[in-house]
Amino acid sequence: MSSISVTPLSGIETIDIALGERSYPIRIGSGLLRAPESFAGVPRSPLAVIVSNTTVAPLYAQSLRDALRGRHAQVELITLPDGESHKDWAALNLIFDALLARGADRKTILYALGGGVVGDMTGFAAASYMRGVPFVQVPTTLLAQVDSSVGGKTGINHPRGKNMIGAFHQPVCVVVDLETLSTLPMRELRAGLAEVIKYGPIADASFLGWVEANLDALLARDVATLRHAVRRSCEIKAAVVGQDEREAGLRAILNFGHTFGHAIEAGLGYGEWLHGEAVGCGMAMAAETSARLGLLPEGDAERLIRLIDRAGLPVKGPDLGADRYLELMRLDKKAEAGEIKFVLLDAIGHAVLRSVPDATLRQVLASRCT
Amino acid sequence: MSSISVTPLSGIETIDIALGERSYPIRIGSGLLRAPESFAGVPRSPLAVIVSNTTVAPLYAQSLRDALRGRHAQVELITLPDGESHKDWAALNLIFDALLARGADRKTILYALGGGVVGDMTGFAAASYMRGVPFVQVPTTLLAQVDSSVGGKTGINHPRGKNMIGAFHQPVCVVVDLETLSTLPMRELRAGLAEVIKYGPIADASFLGWVEANLDALLARDVATLRHAVRRSCEIKAAVVGQDEREAGLRAILNFGHTFGHAIEAGLGYGEWLHGEAVGCGMAMAAETSARLGLLPEGDAERLIRLIDRAGLPVKGPDLGADRYLELMRLDKKAEAGEIKFVLLDAIGHAVLRSVPDATLRQVLASRCT
Repeated sequence: MSSISVTPLSGIETIDIALGERSYPIRIGSGLLRAPESFAGVPRSPLAVIVSNTTVAPLYAQSLRDALRGRHAQVELITLPDGESHKDWAALNLIFDALLARGADRKTILYALGGGVVGDMTGFAAASYMRGVPFVQVPTTLLAQVDSSVGGKTGINHPRGKNMIGAFHQPVCVVVDLETLSTLPMRELRAGLAEVIKYGPIADASFLGWVEANLDALLARDVATLRHAVRRSCEIKAAVVGQDEREAGLRAILNFGHTFGHAIEAGLGYGEWLHGEAVGCGMAMAAETSARLGLLPEGDAERLIRLIDRAGLPVKGPDLGADRYLELMRLDKKAEAGEIKFVLLDAIGHAVLRSVPDATLRQVLASRCT
Repeated sequence: MSSISVTPLSGIETIDIALGERSYPIRIGSGLLRAPESFAGVPRSPLAVIVSNTTVAPLYAQSLRDALRGRHAQVELITLPDGESHKDWAALNLIFDALLARGADRKTILYALGGGVVGDMTGFAAASYMRGVPFVQVPTTLLAQVDSSVGGKTGINHPRGKNMIGAFHQPVCVVVDLETLSTLPMRELRAGLAEVIKYGPIADASFLGWVEANLDALLARDVATLRHAVRRSCEIKAAVVGQDEREAGLRAILNFGHTFGHAIEAGLGYGEWLHGEAVGCGMAMAAETSARLGLLPEGDAERLIRLIDRAGLPVKGPDLGADRYLELMRLDKKAEAGEIKFVLLDAIGHAVLRSVPDATLRQVLASRCT
């Protein structure tokens, strides 16, 4: 079912997500959001609505608007408050209100211009507005470019759990403009690297080696190095999603570090830690869990934790108390009948789904919480 | 793509909705919600949650719970406020809050026990909770039994328009218990008849003749007559939905009378008129529009309006002012670039989709508003 083709075309590289009639391209390059040809194939609806936030809109909304002018007679902008703490009903309703006020109909196309929060919310709004309108992802953070903009997961948070309310709704196209990484705050760059680091241990040992060797260039924002990191991450994600769109099985491996990470985010309150920071720490916890269960050599766990640490990401979690961690993790979407399924490693480059005895979890939490 | 089989089996009649891997049965009979075998084929998840409202739950929730006890280890009940005015975010969130509080996971099954509002909201909650869980429709009003429980349209209202936020999400099964019609208030029975009446003019002239001949028995709640009305309505709906699940074309004919009707509901405030009352009046308006455009003989329009009137449904609309009607109708989901597409008749038994000059609409509104 899945096939990947990488087509370098005048500086644009394309990775295809193979999902039958829901297939779509990821286009990667520099300056793409200013270039009308980046959006080739997007339906020429009369009305397009860009959804962005107060941080990103001032930087890039006008450029995107100009690029879309030949494609849509009218291009409107909706600006949301910035941050994970606003990934909720209230902000989602701002999108619906604005769409209705502007007379958006079933053909109207939404463009998500921003990071993971903007992408997830715009995607869920597109999935639900009039029971579904098309949308385009224009991710402007490293995290969104290598992970959240690809694969069609959309949603909002609930006070009791992350991304609890949402839909699978694939974009018609993902346009990754590497230039936007030049304005990304350092803390967000590091958070995005967490998801880049993730792909090696779960699927490609050699990519982990490449990230170790090139971490300094990535942190220095070398464009060619970032381009390779984004492309390889998207290739791995495309291969996984192409085989399991709705997370019946394999796709769950993409959540490596996320069960611990989501508990940290919910436990501290959304927005306290960045998602990528929580995932970085969560991967350290999952690696240690894998080692304690005897699945993974201790040296391999230490190697991964060292890389996370070198990227400037936390490898120790907040002290929420083990009971609270366990309670929050039982609400994870991968849990069934209260039993939590963790994504663990049985080798660098290979993930497995396992339940873990509470006693082991408590040992890991005692060891990895400050 | 579409096929219909009617299998009378120990008093249960089954109509299959043919949608490939999303196919499901509609089961029709008396006493079905008390009978465990009505739910054959529904996955045996450990947790099931019945969603109902303050009117229906006291009448039927215990019987349904008892019927489900052998299938699910735990059966919980969520009771929503009753009425179209509560088909909103706030009530939807009550469902999410309750699901999370009860530890519902991706395998949990929701049962919608109630009328169209409960069915639409439970369906949308099921579509969105953890990005999608299965659900069963147990419609207890005539309107829900012949229309809203079948076909997978789910959603909530927005102050600016009906069902503006929602999803296509098919149930795993629809269980129609005709006994529940014995407790239905007369006003709601009449409202349900609006949707029964609808199927004749759009798809089956002989069914219109049957409804005319049997209207008194329907109003007197004769069970055999109601059973035929429900079955034939579901057969027609199944055939249409089987050909066009996501309303790319044909399915729009099911919205006969709904563009005018939705404007009445939104204009008066949801819940002022019942949905079926607004649709009844909307069909009268659509019939007159068809006649004024020369599509339909005037006598046929009058015949349909007479039947709607005999059913005790309004054939004159509230005086919202023509400008307000036009404004509200431009927000209809079938509108594109501000042009409203009306479902009209070019014969009794055949519907067409047409735009209508504003001048004609104003004539119709002047004639049919008091």
